Amino acid sequence: MSVDFICDYYKSVESLPVLPGVEPGYLRRLLQSAPPTCSAPFNVTMKELREAVVPGMTHWASPNFFAFFPATNSAAGIAGELIASAMNTVGFTWQASPAATEMEVLALDWLAQLLRLPTSFVNRTGAAGRGTGGGVILGTTSEAMLVTLVAARDAALRRCGSNGIAGITRLTVYAADQTHSTFFKMCHLAGFDPANIRSIPTGEENDYALDPTRLLEAIQADVDAGLVPTYICCTVGTTSSNAVDPVGAVADVATRFNAWVHIDAAYAGSACICPEFRHHIDGVERVDSISMSPHKWLMTCLDCTCLWVRDTHRLTNSLETTPEYLKNGASESGTVTDLKDMQVGIGRRFRGLKLWMVMRTYGAAKLQEHIRSDVAMARMFEDSVRADDRFEVVVPRNFALVCFRIRPHGGMTEEDAEGANRELMERLNKTGKAYLAHTAVGGKFVLRFAVGSSTQEERHVRSAWELIQKTTTEMKGEM
Amino acid sequence: MSVDFICDYYKSVESLPVLPGVEPGYLRRLLQSAPPTCSAPFNVTMKELREAVVPGMTHWASPNFFAFFPATNSAAGIAGELIASAMNTVGFTWQASPAATEMEVLALDWLAQLLRLPTSFVNRTGAAGRGTGGGVILGTTSEAMLVTLVAARDAALRRCGSNGIAGITRLTVYAADQTHSTFFKMCHLAGFDPANIRSIPTGEENDYALDPTRLLEAIQADVDAGLVPTYICCTVGTTSSNAVDPVGAVADVATRFNAWVHIDAAYAGSACICPEFRHHIDGVERVDSISMSPHKWLMTCLDCTCLWVRDTHRLTNSLETTPEYLKNGASESGTVTDLKDMQVGIGRRFRGLKLWMVMRTYGAAKLQEHIRSDVAMARMFEDSVRADDRFEVVVPRNFALVCFRIRPHGGMTEEDAEGANRELMERLNKTGKAYLAHTAVGGKFVLRFAVGSSTQEERHVRSAWELIQKTTTEMKGEM
Repeated sequence: MSVDFICDYYKSVESLPVLPGVEPGYLRRLLQSAPPTCSAPFNVTMKELREAVVPGMTHWASPNFFAFFPATNSAAGIAGELIASAMNTVGFTWQASPAATEMEVLALDWLAQLLRLPTSFVNRTGAAGRGTGGGVILGTTSEAMLVTLVAARDAALRRCGSNGIAGITRLTVYAADQTHSTFFKMCHLAGFDPANIRSIPTGEENDYALDPTRLLEAIQADVDAGLVPTYICCTVGTTSSNAVDPVGAVADVATRFNAWVHIDAAYAGSACICPEFRHHIDGVERVDSISMSPHKWLMTCLDCTCLWVRDTHRLTNSLETTPEYLKNGASESGTVTDLKDMQVGIGRRFRGLKLWMVMRTYGAAKLQEHIRSDVAMARMFEDSVRADDRFEVVVPRNFALVCFRIRPHGGMTEEDAEGANRELMERLNKTGKAYLAHTAVGGKFVLRFAVGSSTQEERHVRSAWELIQKTTTEMKGEM
Repeated sequence: MSVDFICDYYKSVESLPVLPGVEPGYLRRLLQSAPPTCSAPFNVTMKELREAVVPGMTHWASPNFFAFFPATNSAAGIAGELIASAMNTVGFTWQASPAATEMEVLALDWLAQLLRLPTSFVNRTGAAGRGTGGGVILGTTSEAMLVTLVAARDAALRRCGSNGIAGITRLTVYAADQTHSTFFKMCHLAGFDPANIRSIPTGEENDYALDPTRLLEAIQADVDAGLVPTYICCTVGTTSSNAVDPVGAVADVATRFNAWVHIDAAYAGSACICPEFRHHIDGVERVDSISMSPHKWLMTCLDCTCLWVRDTHRLTNSLETTPEYLKNGASESGTVTDLKDMQVGIGRRFRGLKLWMVMRTYGAAKLQEHIRSDVAMARMFEDSVRADDRFEVVVPRNFALVCFRIRPHGGMTEEDAEGANRELMERLNKTGKAYLAHTAVGGKFVLRFAVGSSTQEERHVRSAWELIQKTTTEMKGEM
């Protein structure tokens, strides 16, 4: 019954309003507010799902979804999640499910090969014990940032001879001002002092990427003030505008100060399986960790964030726990990986299965084709924007995200332009035929057109562009 | 094809060795070590899954699984996870998926009613804006601890007038020595000083529960030393032996010092939907937060940890982020809940659906029956243990976990008894017909018999007991 539901859903999702028109509190008016005492036939549950839940969903699977980044999906990914849910295994230690641990390690190793990551990041476990490199699958990029921040924090505290946590007030962290806000949240969670979290300004001259010279200046000033540079977050494909921080140059700066460098390639990392995009992570062999999320652009449903680190011991030193009830011969032998010691909590789902099933079923060539097809559609959209002189592309397109806006023209001020773009976005989103989000780049209100939802084809991109043009013309007519 | 796999799996899981006999590295010897270039028919993927993955799984769904705590599951739970995976929505803000946010809030509200939580914990969002109480679904109890620890930490820093994070060296946290090791890990993540994390000793006299007098003494000593009591973790149903910390008495102590009290009822919280077990959380109206995991004992597949807090503003003050690309009218109106601000990261799966589907389909009565049936089976096992004078029940059974061991008898020393119990566990686990884990209680090596895997019936518990008796007899014969 739920499989039928999904088939129907995918058949109809194109015609559903991508952004629903419901008001806050709508669901509580449709469903009973108290839990039922008695059981109900499953079709009652499904009826309520269809009638009350679906109409209030924002349809991320809709071909008319262009907001945020797409959450791409696939039959193999869904099947993997389904099977993992049914087996419902909790692979905190190797013994608690050998296949779950080994499959996760294998899937990470395969993906590392597709990304041509250096072998120093690969999990090598053998008769000689664990190597230093390794990976783990987490739920979100935030978790990848948090665990590496904590590992870097603890290493820096040891380095500066801190008695317990006291030295934390001397530790500093760095990222471009375009870095995802969750990075600053994770620094906060890990206890870094708000006064020591540096947001390095970016500008148009670097396409809003981290400027290594500014980074070096900031770090040097901190060192001169007796502070301890601890961690630098380097984003490949920022959320706002897909800026790419220069990995190699950042690593060069970091090396001089013994600071941890993490690459957050949550979205654009998937593109790096294509040789023509791989250069964006050149220099990765000199960083400490890298994470990317196949749940964003590699056809693997939520949640799946892959983290690789060059030295797993630095993670496990900070994250290992061994209560009596989790002790077992395999762990004590030192020949296995216990993935609980590389993540935030202890319990964990079998996320490696879906990632492996996606790679096993589609193969490298089809995954690359999927990336290239999205990029080609984005390029087509970009060309359309450039061909209409009412609009402008605000930053160069690197992947499948186009940042554009109605440019100030015909006597419009910057303020008028912001109003017009805001109005355009709201009108588009109200039609239910397209959903776009916005951002601010260099102080400008900009529309983000993110290509790549699982069901999207060229015709949807074309229709969206026609809708944008038509709506803009209507707005002008009304003025 | 994957649905057929699951049906076959559940039909055959009883006959599969519950703990597989594979050696570390086995999977890499069975599957190709490099990702394929070309796509493969889906049945190739499924064949490798059946032939290489299944034989290396520890079968948590097996009726012969008695280790750790069961990860209970159900058709409605799996269907909910499947549908959520297929829709693949990312409900970080209300607007990003109104139904996902409202369903999560509704499911939490239903479960709060089943648990008879005070209304102060319930999410009230209306025309007048957000109330103070509310909940969120997270992946693990660890996350629930982490976000509340950070909120309590930040509140305590403000209270003691700390300049930034500097005051953290004065903050102290408390838990019984039986508290799950992840609590101490989360304190570490949140930056609490190792020297300020108090593990309060427990003993047989309190059935290994937190002693409020000892807690008070520890806190008072810290206050006298100029430290700031910040957070107390109170476990209802410890992992090791299902001890229940006295919630009301702990809350009484905490109130005197303005410390945050969190109830971790990860496992036993599910039992509190039955009136006869509800007393274990009496006093909950005076604590700050409570979490429990329906993925443990409420037929909802991984992952689903429910957290309720009395004052969501204390969470959101610490966890809120509002980058430009997530701003929207609904959030700005203050009439909606943006669940990203009550959790570790930003991205999130639609976990509320499966929890709602479980309650909607089975209803309160059936869920209670499920708990009672497991408890009855555990009682039956306990009675069997008590009736055989070679064995002893080590701590009183509170729920569906029985902690027992071969007692020292016939001239056995304590050391001999430990050896015999270890040997018994290893022999049992090697048969593939049962999987038990162990713990240490009061310095004794103890076997944990956790009843309740989804497919378990009385006959499996009986068989396991017969196997335990037979194996013990064999061991004696060989001596």
